[in-house]
Amino acid sequence: MILAGIIMAEAAAIYGDKNAAQSQSYGPESRGGASKSEVIISEQDIDYPKATSIDCMLALTQEACTKYHDDVKKDGILLVDSTYVTDIPDGDFKVISEPIIETARDELGKIITANIISLGMIAELTEVVTRESIEQAVLSRVPPAFLELNKKALAVGFDHAARHK
Amino acid sequence: MILAGIIMAEAAAIYGDKNAAQSQSYGPESRGGASKSEVIISEQDIDYPKATSIDCMLALTQEACTKYHDDVKKDGILLVDSTYVTDIPDGDFKVISEPIIETARDELGKIITANIISLGMIAELTEVVTRESIEQAVLSRVPPAFLELNKKALAVGFDHAARHK
Repeated sequence: MILAGIIMAEAAAIYGDKNAAQSQSYGPESRGGASKSEVIISEQDIDYPKATSIDCMLALTQEACTKYHDDVKKDGILLVDSTYVTDIPDGDFKVISEPIIETARDELGKIITANIISLGMIAELTEVVTRESIEQAVLSRVPPAFLELNKKALAVGFDHAARHK
Repeated sequence: MILAGIIMAEAAAIYGDKNAAQSQSYGPESRGGASKSEVIISEQDIDYPKATSIDCMLALTQEACTKYHDDVKKDGILLVDSTYVTDIPDGDFKVISEPIIETARDELGKIITANIISLGMIAELTEVVTRESIEQAVLSRVPPAFLELNKKALAVGFDHAARHK
């Protein structure tokens, strides 16, 4: 999922015309516990590279959802994997629950595509980058042998997200 | 080199017992120009995930060196690639100039190993992570077919750095 964060930042800053900052935080909890990858995208300079009020959060595990959902801003989006996140927290955000991991395994045949499906969903839901920018960024970061698979994963993400708009 | 930053952070926080934050900043200049990857390692919590006073900077291009060397702290280390950085800036830091890219190409046979050679050098020069932690972190992040190549690249980095200690 770190790679997904990097691709989103590059879609905005290299293939789009915005600024971006992307970060990972590792604490003692990173040894097997929840860890976090963040992306900030702005038309202005980014002074403080840490996300404090989140437009869209993706949580693939219950632990991550429980631990971090408080940072989602009012009317933001909390996207969760419906298989692994069953205890949905209350809050002034829109919850979108989709079987992302299951879709990666069953529709794409590779669990590893879950990050690219997620990227497609987030791009479509937030509209912070264009479909063209995110596709260029994905294709520049994945091995040549997997271009078609990842293009398809992205399209599946766009489709699943479009149902919620 | 983003991957090198991620591996350094994971060496400290997952394979060592420290906290780490790792970030990339992308501005309009990222389109072909200088871009920057940062790692902060601390025994305390990391509140501000942006490096402001740098213990060790690696610059592979003259542009990056010229643009960012001011952030290296007093008695810090400025590590540069001797082939591409020929105009060494003045400052209260120790300059170490090594043909990193050339070593990757000639000793390892693959330019892509320059990032792992660099990691070995930085680990050895700063001693911020142990040789064991950085090796575990490298081996967990590279494809199985390239384990031996990367292990060798890391060892070459240790060796080249040890000459400067």
